[in-house]
Amino acid sequence: AIAEFLNDQNISDVAELINEYPDYEAQIIANMAIHRAASVFKILDITEQRRIVKELPPFKTAELLNELPADDRTDFLEELPKEVIRDLIKLIDPEERKITLSLLGYPEDSVGRLMTPDYVYVYEHNTVDEALSVIRKVAKSSETVDVIYIINEKGELVDDVKLRDIIIAATDKKMGELLDGRVVALNVNDDQEHASQVFKMNNRVALPVTDDNNILLGIVTIDDMLWVANEEFSEDMQKMGGTEALEEPYLETPFFKLIKKRVGWLIVLFIGEMLTATAMAYFSDELAKAIVLSIFVPLIMSSGGNSGSQASTLIIQAMAVGEVSLSDWWRVLRRELLSGLTLGSILGSIGFLRICLWHFLMQHGVIQDLYGPHWLLVGFSVGFSLIGVVLWGTLSGSMLPIILKKLGADPAASSAPFVATLVDVTGLVIYFSVAFIFLKGILL
Amino acid sequence: AIAEFLNDQNISDVAELINEYPDYEAQIIANMAIHRAASVFKILDITEQRRIVKELPPFKTAELLNELPADDRTDFLEELPKEVIRDLIKLIDPEERKITLSLLGYPEDSVGRLMTPDYVYVYEHNTVDEALSVIRKVAKSSETVDVIYIINEKGELVDDVKLRDIIIAATDKKMGELLDGRVVALNVNDDQEHASQVFKMNNRVALPVTDDNNILLGIVTIDDMLWVANEEFSEDMQKMGGTEALEEPYLETPFFKLIKKRVGWLIVLFIGEMLTATAMAYFSDELAKAIVLSIFVPLIMSSGGNSGSQASTLIIQAMAVGEVSLSDWWRVLRRELLSGLTLGSILGSIGFLRICLWHFLMQHGVIQDLYGPHWLLVGFSVGFSLIGVVLWGTLSGSMLPIILKKLGADPAASSAPFVATLVDVTGLVIYFSVAFIFLKGILL
Ligand SMILES: [Mg+2]
Ligand SMILES: [Mg+2]
Ligand SMILES: [Mg+2]
Ligand SMILES: [Mg+2]
Ligand SMILES: [Mg+2]
Ligand SMILES: [Mg+2]
Ligand SMILES: [Mg+2]
Ligand SMILES: [Mg+2]
Ligand SMILES: [Mg+2]
Ligand SMILES: [Mg+2]
Ligand SMILES: [Mg+2]
Ligand SMILES: [Mg+2]
Ligand SMILES: [Mg+2]
Repeated sequence: AIAEFLNDQNISDVAELINEYPDYEAQIIANMAIHRAASVFKILDITEQRRIVKELPPFKTAELLNELPADDRTDFLEELPKEVIRDLIKLIDPEERKITLSLLGYPEDSVGRLMTPDYVYVYEHNTVDEALSVIRKVAKSSETVDVIYIINEKGELVDDVKLRDIIIAATDKKMGELLDGRVVALNVNDDQEHASQVFKMNNRVALPVTDDNNILLGIVTIDDMLWVANEEFSEDMQKMGGTEALEEPYLETPFFKLIKKRVGWLIVLFIGEMLTATAMAYFSDELAKAIVLSIFVPLIMSSGGNSGSQASTLIIQAMAVGEVSLSDWWRVLRRELLSGLTLGSILGSIGFLRICLWHFLMQHGVIQDLYGPHWLLVGFSVGFSLIGVVLWGTLSGSMLPIILKKLGADPAASSAPFVATLVDVTGLVIYFSVAFIFLKGILL
Repeated sequence: AIAEFLNDQNISDVAELINEYPDYEAQIIANMAIHRAASVFKILDITEQRRIVKELPPFKTAELLNELPADDRTDFLEELPKEVIRDLIKLIDPEERKITLSLLGYPEDSVGRLMTPDYVYVYEHNTVDEALSVIRKVAKSSETVDVIYIINEKGELVDDVKLRDIIIAATDKKMGELLDGRVVALNVNDDQEHASQVFKMNNRVALPVTDDNNILLGIVTIDDMLWVANEEFSEDMQKMGGTEALEEPYLETPFFKLIKKRVGWLIVLFIGEMLTATAMAYFSDELAKAIVLSIFVPLIMSSGGNSGSQASTLIIQAMAVGEVSLSDWWRVLRRELLSGLTLGSILGSIGFLRICLWHFLMQHGVIQDLYGPHWLLVGFSVGFSLIGVVLWGTLSGSMLPIILKKLGADPAASSAPFVATLVDVTGLVIYFSVAFIFLKGILL
């Protein structure tokens, strides 16, 4: 009865059930028809998948692994420790084992890892009728039959044809007549992010994957792109927040792993920020002479950090979706130079006006006088420093992702905290230098 | 010749050509077969689309708009100013115009805006053969025939059937016999982000869209989900960097629009940061007495900001992909309490050791003595402040997105700069309070 109930539900509903009743997760999977169990299993979190496989009796695990589409099997296995993979692979049938091992042989984040070898192919000389009977025969075991592939005797990819075009064609036509000569293929070593772009720009639900000699190795289906996009999104976000990418969902990440992912960057940034203490110590004579200067240190530093975070995030996002490439660096620099000057002037003016207003309040005894007789010069120091600091924040925030990319690193590593730290230290130097110009011989 | 060349290219290649030669973009579109021109047009940036429509002769624009699939037409029109929409809609055929207006009637970011009414439906009593002949007839004009829909006499959705299942069925079977009773549908008012989750969790390349009475209104295809994911990703990133979401690509956004999107938050944050000046002024007596305290102000403030950015980004990401929901707030709080204490203790220890080391160097005359005889108490003040500030940063960073969501706002608005600003002000208060405890009657 429970088996019947489970088989009548949508796979997303069963997945929700498993989320809600983690104690019964293995039983739920064990009680479903095996091909439905596989459909549910593949959309679960890696942590749930791992727990289920641990609880299932080995013969059930074997059944499940054999039933999983090759691409989802790879996706599951690649997240596991080496020893566990070795044990699980023994449970897989020899034929499927060979496929799995070859898929696992492709680099992480490559198209090879997303690929499935269960596609439908025919030859140019086959008739539409023959093609349809091939489709009917393998439809059950193929990941998709919505697009089928034409290869030649050498196994090279010739073209792809949509199932709809086959259906509307006369049954005695040769497949060769249906070809439009337009074929979009992925290379097995392509990056998964690139694959996602190709899907976005081409009207296909599946794309063929070839090696460097144009031999058809498998296909990638569009549904997997939603997962790739999700993963990339999460990784980029996490990096931009100044943590290493978590491999598991936040709540499922063990506590010490979570700390490990966070503490590294925090320590690096902390050590970087120690330079602010060095800078402050260097200017301690000035600070002692003009305590009023220290009052605006946090304001000026943070303005640089904020404008830097803005600029770096804008550029990282634009690079992530392919709107800005390395060759655009000059256009970006020009825009950010102007932006930095404009934004800096606006904040600088507000800061200057604020000091004038406070001075007015101090003059009339509303608040304690801290600025002294040289309030106007202090106002100029703060105002012009803000222009300099915001300009500097904007420029370094926008150029850092481009420089990182140029060096082969991930632009997303130029996170908001990283840029803020960089700008904090230099911001202090800018501030004290500007103050020195205005206040030399007067307060300093 | 140019028309032939263009028609032989993949649509992504033509789109690239347009990117490279913006001066010829209208000509390129005008020279292609109209249904191919539409396929290219729909994958272009909104700025390119706008320029092309401006340059094309009105009759070409009319052809193009009529050829565009209804969902892509809506997507293009929704980005335009009201007056332009009005003019363009006049160019569309009456039938298509009705569809377009009804699609534009659904709220922005709703499934209705992604929907196309060009789907294939049959009734339960139809035979497989009848279904196939319907499919053959409308295949050219439908967005997809990979999934077809069964409705009843009232127009209510009964089930969806994959084309592959129809192909492998005997031609005299009734369609009713192919139903599995499992149907996943979207509501026309659902959020687009929700739709993307549903696609991820259900093995479909198209999903039916119904109104509240289960009447089938249209379908959404999976390829559009890649664009939704892209848009959501960009929006969340931009918000997290402390700007309003840009509607156009960074390089295509006019300069003053770019400034407008950025300056708002910068001013809000700047005014928030002014409280640091107030706090510093409040503690100016302490600063005058113990100039050494001011040296560590930037270090302590930024540590709070960095740990806060980390925490807020982790939670925003986890909420965006559905891993953390409002009801998890207590689990998040518990985790971040522990994380904050751990991370704070680590940074606090490093800070303390750094002061001890510098003291050692000062004792031996390597650097100028700034810490004085009470260096140990200064060290404790800094160390314990760091624990407090990092803990506070972590807690407010993690809770803010949850609180925003609870209030119905976008969690992504609790950007790294926003959290940093919040923590900067309170960080100062924590620092001076802790210093007061250690140094009262000694330095203060
Ligand atoms: Mg993966
Ligand atoms: Mg997975
Ligand atoms: Mg083709
Ligand atoms: Mg797949
Ligand atoms: Mg899959
Ligand atoms: Mg990335
Ligand atoms: Mg839209
Ligand atoms: Mg568009
Ligand atoms: Mg169904
Ligand atoms: Mg569509
Ligand atoms: Mg579309
Ligand atoms: Mg959002
Ligand atoms: Mg800061």
